[in-house]
Order: sequence, then C-alpha cells, then structure tokens
Amino acid sequence: MSCDSRQTLGALLFEDFELLDAFGPLELFGLCPEHLRIITVAERHGVTASAQGPRCAVDHCFDDCPRIDVLLVPGGRGTRRQVTNGTLLAWLQSSARSARLLASVCTGASLLAAAGLLDGKRATTNKLAFRWVTEQGPRVQWVAKARWIEDTNIFTAAGVSAGMDMALGVISRMLGPEEAERVANEAEYDWHRDPSWDPFARQAGLS
Amino acid sequence: MSCDSRQTLGALLFEDFELLDAFGPLELFGLCPEHLRIITVAERHGVTASAQGPRCAVDHCFDDCPRIDVLLVPGGRGTRRQVTNGTLLAWLQSSARSARLLASVCTGASLLAAAGLLDGKRATTNKLAFRWVTEQGPRVQWVAKARWIEDTNIFTAAGVSAGMDMALGVISRMLGPEEAERVANEAEYDWHRDPSWDPFARQAGLS
Repeated sequence: MSCDSRQTLGALLFEDFELLDAFGPLELFGLCPEHLRIITVAERHGVTASAQGPRCAVDHCFDDCPRIDVLLVPGGRGTRRQVTNGTLLAWLQSSARSARLLASVCTGASLLAAAGLLDGKRATTNKLAFRWVTEQGPRVQWVAKARWIEDTNIFTAAGVSAGMDMALGVISRMLGPEEAERVANEAEYDWHRDPSWDPFARQAGLS
Repeated sequence: MSCDSRQTLGALLFEDFELLDAFGPLELFGLCPEHLRIITVAERHGVTASAQGPRCAVDHCFDDCPRIDVLLVPGGRGTRRQVTNGTLLAWLQSSARSARLLASVCTGASLLAAAGLLDGKRATTNKLAFRWVTEQGPRVQWVAKARWIEDTNIFTAAGVSAGMDMALGVISRMLGPEEAERVANEAEYDWHRDPSWDPFARQAGLS
C-alpha cells in the first residue's frame, strides 16, 4: 500500500511528439515535487522518439497505467497519425473519466477533440496548424486568439511554448497563485499571466 | 560514408539534469532540421533520469561519440556530483577542442568552469545558485545580471528557461537572425532578444 499522497501527473507520449510541448510543462510541474509525481504513458513500453529526435522512456503503457489525476497531452506532427488511432482515443476517454484535470498543448488539442472531450467547450491550439486541428472538433468552440483557455476542468494551450504559461495556470488553480509565482521564479521564466495575450494569432492571420 | 552535411548538436546528459535546460534549447534547435542533427551523449549508454523524473535515452556514450559541432551542457542538481567527475570533465575538455560552439544553461556553467573552459571569459549562470557555481570558476569573469552571455565561441545562459533565449541567440549567430525569428514564431515563443534583460538577478538580490 502506497503512502504517497501526491497527485499523479501523466504525460502522454507518442512517436513524433513535440519535445517542448511535453517537457516545458513537465519542468514546471516537476518543480512541485511535494505535490505532484510525474509519469510518462504511451501505447507501448520502451522509448518514444520526439519529432526533434531525442527519445524518452515510457514509464507505463496504456494497459498498466495507474489512475491519472492530471493528464497532459502534447502536440507535434505525430498527432496527424494519432487522431485516427482508436486505441489511443479510447484510452484518452477512459483516463478523462477519472482525471481531475485535462491539459493539451499545441496540436495535442486535436487528440482531445477527436476523442470528443472538447465538445461544447471553449478551446485553443497552435496557430499555424489552426485549421487542421479545428477540423478535428466541429462541435468545439475554438478560440483563435488565446495563450491558453480554461473551461471547466480542461486547459488547452496555443503552440509549443504556450504550454508553459498554461502549466503555471494549472499550478495556480491546483496549488495557488503563490506557488505558480515561486515556480516561475525558480525557472527564471517570464510567465505570461494573461491567458488572452497572443501576438501569434495575428502573425498567423487569425485575428 | 555519410552525405549528411548538417552540423551535429550534442546535448550532454547526466543523472538529475534539469529537464528544460536540455529540452528547451533542443526544441528550438530541432526546428532547424536541415542544418542541425541532435544527439544526446552521456558517460554510459542506457537512459538518464532528469531531476524532474522523465528519463531520456542516450544516443552515444563518451567512448563512441562522433565529433560535436555545438555542445550543449544543461544544469540541474546533478551538476553537484559531476563537478568532481574527472571522466566527464576530461570529455568536456576533449569535445571543446573540436567544437565550434559551446553552450551551457543554468548550473551547467559549473561544469564548463570546473573543466577550465571559462577561464578568462565572461559568463553567467542560474541566479539562485549563483554563489555555488561561481565558486567552481575563480578565474571566470562572472556576470550576475544577464539573460545570456556570448564570449568568443562560448554561450552561457542564466537559469532554466533562459536557455531558450540563448538558443535563439546561437541560431541567430549560426544561421542568421531571420532563422531565429522564424523558429521563435513557429514555437510561439516570446523571445527575449536582449541578452542583458534579467529581472531575476534583482529578485535574487544580485543587482
């Protein structure tokens, strides 16, 4: 029997995930080790290669994964294959039922959308891939200009580095704003505290 | 015989390296795949655990590592053990002789300093660990207030997320400022272009 009272933060991995989508938020969550333990989860055991090359070890596969409290879904070019992966979408649906919070970064929103988890909710995603992602979720209220969106228990971030601003938003909600400020300072990170800050939507011709 | 004309960017890994110190820069370098190929290097083969938990696969160990053009040295609490690891310091010295550029993030500067590679040069490091790092290099011209420092062919970044701003500085020098701007935009990253921008030095009581 475990005496570990920390919440479990599970990061989904798949081939060609975007490196910073996963490890930006995991750095910041990892600076709260008294409250959160981090695990990586993928369809199969072994190592999973990022789109940038570096390979990450898988802690749990779908079949032996413990209950996840906070589920982090990165994006990356690998999402193009995973949006039609029924095994992965079914695992997302199942995990979402027992999770307290869901969070996606960049094109990771396409996977939450394809699993139906964003239906009726406000959400955002990467600005350069906005059209493709939004096609995966016709019943989602997509917001083009946003650094991140928080709707009920689902956080969605814009592209790549926006995941770090969102992660601090998640920490603020879970552990309080003082903890988010402490983490940002420890990482020497210039937190964009305003979730509507988004110069990249305009650069991509979306606003 | 390889026809790959790309430069090799080697990221050093060791137990308890800081996740974002390595993967923040590697995300940005990874967005220049036509120019750079990324490898991870450690003392031994296998996987190396970050201070935050996630484990990364090692592409090459010291004994079978190809020539590295750009060497990236992350920080993290693991540096406290590595500053006295003669095998690692000797490998850094050897790799530095054939590298075009050296770059450290956060407390990674302690390893370059302990290897004597920063002697007589200007350099910076993490602000909360400033005293310990600077003790590792008494002949280094340490700069407390800096996001990153570029001195000859050596770049050193401040804490954790500063590595991303420095990485864009490296890209700007290697591939031109337009390429750095393209990468920052693709990652939706708010690049701090001014290397002297540093509110964290004051927060740490250093300026």
